[in-house]
Amino acid sequence: MFHFFLLALFFISSSSPSHGAVQDFCVADYKAPEGPAGYSCKTPSKVTVDDFVFNLGTPGNTSNIIKAAVTPAFAAQFPGVNGLGISLGRLDIAVDGVVPLHTHPGASEVLVVVQGTICAGFISSTANTVYLQTLKKGDIMVFPQGLLHFQVNGGGNAAIAFVSFSSPVPGLQIVDFALFANNLPSALVEKTTFLDDAQVKKLKAVLGGTG
Amino acid sequence: MFHFFLLALFFISSSSPSHGAVQDFCVADYKAPEGPAGYSCKTPSKVTVDDFVFNLGTPGNTSNIIKAAVTPAFAAQFPGVNGLGISLGRLDIAVDGVVPLHTHPGASEVLVVVQGTICAGFISSTANTVYLQTLKKGDIMVFPQGLLHFQVNGGGNAAIAFVSFSSPVPGLQIVDFALFANNLPSALVEKTTFLDDAQVKKLKAVLGGTG
Amino acid sequence: MFHFFLLALFFISSSSPSHGAVQDFCVADYKAPEGPAGYSCKTPSKVTVDDFVFNLGTPGNTSNIIKAAVTPAFAAQFPGVNGLGISLGRLDIAVDGVVPLHTHPGASEVLVVVQGTICAGFISSTANTVYLQTLKKGDIMVFPQGLLHFQVNGGGNAAIAFVSFSSPVPGLQIVDFALFANNLPSALVEKTTFLDDAQVKKLKAVLGGTG
Amino acid sequence: MFHFFLLALFFISSSSPSHGAVQDFCVADYKAPEGPAGYSCKTPSKVTVDDFVFNLGTPGNTSNIIKAAVTPAFAAQFPGVNGLGISLGRLDIAVDGVVPLHTHPGASEVLVVVQGTICAGFISSTANTVYLQTLKKGDIMVFPQGLLHFQVNGGGNAAIAFVSFSSPVPGLQIVDFALFANNLPSALVEKTTFLDDAQVKKLKAVLGGTG
Amino acid sequence: MFHFFLLALFFISSSSPSHGAVQDFCVADYKAPEGPAGYSCKTPSKVTVDDFVFNLGTPGNTSNIIKAAVTPAFAAQFPGVNGLGISLGRLDIAVDGVVPLHTHPGASEVLVVVQGTICAGFISSTANTVYLQTLKKGDIMVFPQGLLHFQVNGGGNAAIAFVSFSSPVPGLQIVDFALFANNLPSALVEKTTFLDDAQVKKLKAVLGGTG
Amino acid sequence: MFHFFLLALFFISSSSPSHGAVQDFCVADYKAPEGPAGYSCKTPSKVTVDDFVFNLGTPGNTSNIIKAAVTPAFAAQFPGVNGLGISLGRLDIAVDGVVPLHTHPGASEVLVVVQGTICAGFISSTANTVYLQTLKKGDIMVFPQGLLHFQVNGGGNAAIAFVSFSSPVPGLQIVDFALFANNLPSALVEKTTFLDDAQVKKLKAVLGGTG
Repeated sequence: MFHFFLLALFFISSSSPSHGAVQDFCVADYKAPEGPAGYSCKTPSKVTVDDFVFNLGTPGNTSNIIKAAVTPAFAAQFPGVNGLGISLGRLDIAVDGVVPLHTHPGASEVLVVVQGTICAGFISSTANTVYLQTLKKGDIMVFPQGLLHFQVNGGGNAAIAFVSFSSPVPGLQIVDFALFANNLPSALVEKTTFLDDAQVKKLKAVLGGTG
Repeated sequence: MFHFFLLALFFISSSSPSHGAVQDFCVADYKAPEGPAGYSCKTPSKVTVDDFVFNLGTPGNTSNIIKAAVTPAFAAQFPGVNGLGISLGRLDIAVDGVVPLHTHPGASEVLVVVQGTICAGFISSTANTVYLQTLKKGDIMVFPQGLLHFQVNGGGNAAIAFVSFSSPVPGLQIVDFALFANNLPSALVEKTTFLDDAQVKKLKAVLGGTG
Repeated sequence: MFHFFLLALFFISSSSPSHGAVQDFCVADYKAPEGPAGYSCKTPSKVTVDDFVFNLGTPGNTSNIIKAAVTPAFAAQFPGVNGLGISLGRLDIAVDGVVPLHTHPGASEVLVVVQGTICAGFISSTANTVYLQTLKKGDIMVFPQGLLHFQVNGGGNAAIAFVSFSSPVPGLQIVDFALFANNLPSALVEKTTFLDDAQVKKLKAVLGGTG
Repeated sequence: MFHFFLLALFFISSSSPSHGAVQDFCVADYKAPEGPAGYSCKTPSKVTVDDFVFNLGTPGNTSNIIKAAVTPAFAAQFPGVNGLGISLGRLDIAVDGVVPLHTHPGASEVLVVVQGTICAGFISSTANTVYLQTLKKGDIMVFPQGLLHFQVNGGGNAAIAFVSFSSPVPGLQIVDFALFANNLPSALVEKTTFLDDAQVKKLKAVLGGTG
Repeated sequence: MFHFFLLALFFISSSSPSHGAVQDFCVADYKAPEGPAGYSCKTPSKVTVDDFVFNLGTPGNTSNIIKAAVTPAFAAQFPGVNGLGISLGRLDIAVDGVVPLHTHPGASEVLVVVQGTICAGFISSTANTVYLQTLKKGDIMVFPQGLLHFQVNGGGNAAIAFVSFSSPVPGLQIVDFALFANNLPSALVEKTTFLDDAQVKKLKAVLGGTG
Repeated sequence: MFHFFLLALFFISSSSPSHGAVQDFCVADYKAPEGPAGYSCKTPSKVTVDDFVFNLGTPGNTSNIIKAAVTPAFAAQFPGVNGLGISLGRLDIAVDGVVPLHTHPGASEVLVVVQGTICAGFISSTANTVYLQTLKKGDIMVFPQGLLHFQVNGGGNAAIAFVSFSSPVPGLQIVDFALFANNLPSALVEKTTFLDDAQVKKLKAVLGGTG
């Protein structure tokens, strides 16, 4: 039995000193350099279970004009998913609320409705085909990577969904924000979208854009 | 305007005939060959929104001895996730229920509790460290790829969770089934696990194993 | 010398029959099934140098309302790039022409100007920052995967560029086509983009959309 | 000839200063941060051939109760394999020795017997099918990523094998150590494995576990 | 106990019929199409342990002018490694034998000497640095992907090594065969290698090349 | 409208502080550590459009004995492509010039001729098959990863081409430099290439090699 106990210590022998290696996970160390594959890893001995647990139980604040909120648990918020090819988020969509047309440049998404009704859709790039569905509690829908999609409250109650992503860093690009919430010159917006000048200026005013 | 309409058709010109290519997604065609990257793709023209939607609203049947059930929405059940690096599942754990010690050889997992309380844990491979947490509604926890983990109902009510995976084909290997629900000779089980002969035979009897 | 010659034949011995394997390339066989990783491979013995060569020398037809054309040499047109992580395209932008706001869901892009002047830009997803530059002959610019970007003729002459992609199947999603060239209901377009009803209907009419 | 010599220096011209880039390899620098893709790279000028060479010639010490030893040449011991998608190890199994049931969460394995006889097996996750074989000198066997497997000395002499992995960081999780060599509460072990309390406590005592 | 047995069958419930999916492995089906990711998968029910086992125990025939032989266990010979990111080979190098300068376009390699002495080396692409070492029994050496390397018998006895690759389809391109064992015109060989005409023609004659 | 403006700021809520994450790109920070996936990322706030733009407009200096020059825009020169799976280069080949036999260990290549005529070819590893073609302006050709290939001016004018790579770090290994421009002993060169001693010494002298 004594030998057996030693086994736990000496079973893995090595002819040279061993260095702490990233083996099972790479919990994000927010103070060290980031690379194309993600954050640097926290020293394993400093990792605790709290690094692997996150709370998405608090409803996002939907008291805004879109009546919706997304709460991310991406690598920037949730250190445990760094490097693991997955992340999560929570969607709150009040009555008449909407998650505007957007893409995730870095991930595919699966949405599961846990309360209310959501009308969701995406558009394919090949033939501009629209894939549209009204989802009830327990329904799930997949949105392939990088494609334009949206979610709209489809009922008379607040809707809640959890969204999973195939990357810890999915990104989130909302078309309206990309066009109207920055200093992209109106003339360029109009030239590249065929939108009318009045329309562009109206939305720039609403979203705080300039130029 | 006529020209503009033609644009939609002729904007993308090509000096040679174009062949329908997998662009945005590769919905599983269950009748064509599978490869290491997944199922063959359904002809895009035959793809409908139903391929991208799945229902996980029905509780799994927990009237079994572990008082738990997992309902997968992997590529084999949910054709839309094929090739997209993600899949989902539903976990129902009745009071006193348990999802026994298991691994997913092909994916990391994030679990989100939507009802009840779940006590979940995983063990790291480097130092056999245990990461254990009691999760309430809205809590999420990540289980890194390939590591042994489990979930146990941690309260007085049925618990429900959705589990996301970083692959459309995560796999699921339950240690007890691998050891006791097949024809792996008892002598080998004992030799490679240090379990007593009586223990092995008892569990083989329970789980239908032979040898 | 006799032995040496045999070497070429027998150097690689094998204790079991060998099967033709995909080794160096996987030229697309357009008649066999596609999978998530691309087209099936043509039998190596039927591959010729023509499979690896393509012509992008012919200007695209810019006699359309956007005065621009893109000619793809993606896996669907150019069988030799199948599975190799790269593809090319040609951009012709006449005076006043524009490649409208679009994304490539599956690839990063590098553009090189070979004639004329192009004003190009992309918007980041994090802070909606605009990266805008006027490019002259010999300038190159990179557009990270999945981000909204555009190209506009920036001079008094027709412009030509070659665009490289980090995938043989980059995809191409033009925002205007996704919104206005299909049957996505106007109400949903308006709801998810905040565009005015008149604007949406005007562009739907132009681009042939319905609903 | 003078020009030719200059060629070696000036052939690769550049319009801007060039920075030392990771090109061919990324030898582990054990003192710099690790990321999800592995260790940081040693400055190329400090790399020597010793970084690419390692010795697995010394038998592991099998004077322990399992009568076996594994000597890893993973990225933590062998800096040259960092980032290269491969690593090696040596297996020594004395007569009656055993490498207990385990998984490699991060890699597939190929084992080649170079001395003696080894009885090896793995269990698939889908149908709990057992794949079992007695391997002689020169036989090789592949163990797919993440699946439970084991090796047992199958003859009357000490056995030696080399094991290759499809990752420089394969990981190694031994089921017995994960269950009995840490502070995972006995009640949880029993609940998630259906093992009897006496069995669990017996093995915890042997392997030094608590709780 | 009855319920428990049913568990094995019904634990994983599903709201729609499930289709046999590639989960743990994808054993090569040599008669179905190949794709960029490898061969199609054999139906799991037809897979046997023989698919995962291969014999490299027979010495390769070194009665040739290089006095060496390589016996591959790549995906084309060894169906079990298909899709698993790893393969193996055996190297036999008689006294004075040599494995000529070559690359593996698709994989990094780790070599382990199991008999005799091997002098091995590779050249980096950045600074043409030579990494050269004499390896004895038990020594291992890594050759980064795609780099030119070679092995020479370094002692007075036949040498044997096993070589592991980070891909089931590593490829093998021997420089001499690429230059002199085909119909590449001598003028082009000379132009692109600076070799003398006499040298080229001499080696073309030896290796059976034409042109 | 006030609320709408706030939306831009508060739409994405978070239950814990968020850390700047690599989302859309990872511009190379040449002063921080490199890892297997590339350079560390520059702080997003310090990134400017100049990081994404590079100039390949200046002809490389072809006043050397091969009458050719390659100008790289790899990650080491062009920080914006770091981590994005793509890079570019410019090829200038004067009359009678040649890009000698070489490989890119880390990438496939697509070449597009923009001026003059280029005779290009590559050799497959399986059967040493030669794929050879004379390319005119507008022709493109793909060279699969790691295979030996070359380009020769095929006409009476200077030729220019742009070359794209499927990696920001493609590498470039010129066979002649690997053999004759370093201290690889002549005896080893001869042994591993079957070249004559005189030939080896002649080229070593030309390219500055020793030994």
